Amino acid sequence: MMATNGNGAAGINGDVQSASSMNDAFAVKKHSGSVNGAAAEDSCHSKQQNGEDKKADRFSFSAEPTVEDIRRMQAEFTDERDWNQFHQPRNLLLAMVGEVGEVSELFQWRGEVAEGLPDWTDSEREHLAHELSDVLIYLVELAEKCRVDLPQAVLRKMALNRLKYPASKVHGSAKKYTEYKD
Amino acid sequence: MMATNGNGAAGINGDVQSASSMNDAFAVKKHSGSVNGAAAEDSCHSKQQNGEDKKADRFSFSAEPTVEDIRRMQAEFTDERDWNQFHQPRNLLLAMVGEVGEVSELFQWRGEVAEGLPDWTDSEREHLAHELSDVLIYLVELAEKCRVDLPQAVLRKMALNRLKYPASKVHGSAKKYTEYKD
Repeated sequence: MMATNGNGAAGINGDVQSASSMNDAFAVKKHSGSVNGAAAEDSCHSKQQNGEDKKADRFSFSAEPTVEDIRRMQAEFTDERDWNQFHQPRNLLLAMVGEVGEVSELFQWRGEVAEGLPDWTDSEREHLAHELSDVLIYLVELAEKCRVDLPQAVLRKMALNRLKYPASKVHGSAKKYTEYKD
Repeated sequence: MMATNGNGAAGINGDVQSASSMNDAFAVKKHSGSVNGAAAEDSCHSKQQNGEDKKADRFSFSAEPTVEDIRRMQAEFTDERDWNQFHQPRNLLLAMVGEVGEVSELFQWRGEVAEGLPDWTDSEREHLAHELSDVLIYLVELAEKCRVDLPQAVLRKMALNRLKYPASKVHGSAKKYTEYKD
């Protein structure tokens, strides 16, 4: 529950206790049609603010594979090797921790690293791509073994984050949510 | 590059040095039509093996949001709060490490935890869902800021894993790939 956004401020930590009450509100958004519905509200606010709009040329991911595609492919990989006997939740968590450590190794001793990694070689970038992938693969398998519908859980968490950090209140500030006064 | 699958064995660690040569083979798969194409090969092998097939009633995720949906929503969330000034790659990595720690807290002092978390309360499950989501959100934003197309990177890594751990060779074994003899 410690907040970790920016330099000590919270960004994506919500109030766990209020999660169940959020589910109702979220369900309405979910059934209203699309994932975009959940983000549309924020997008509108964004256009009213004075920051430059870099969205047009912004980097984006490929549409596939989806989180569910990754879950299914990794489940097949694990099944056909008879590795489920090793993939209990705590083992998968430790596996993920190990991969996070491998990502960390790539960033240690470097000083600040700019967006886009301008000084990195292609080999270093691909190494990073592999280690980030390893984190995601184990995260997805951990969620599966815990019966957490990870994509939908993200939507619930993001809804909480928007409530906890209203753009009008926290704009440009790295404070943790508990530091804001009403 | 340490392998972390199962109890010390490697599962999703590939050979970084061979990544560029893999890209050609992967590109063929990718352009052959679908994400499923990459997994179909393994799926066929799976049916020839003697393990029980639990796929019919297996837990699965919702199709949405996709990894790209999550990237876009989090980018909007960050943009409209003017938080990109805090979201350099190393800060995002540390944020992710913090969230991994929060997941770890939920599993510490418990002894073994069975698949499906049978003894966990609904509140504990939702707390876990939140923390797993936080890891994914920061992982996605980190990949974005590093210009790594995370979904496609996962496909490349999985292709490497299938080469490194042929099902016929590693079935039921938790050895690291360097421990197998040809």
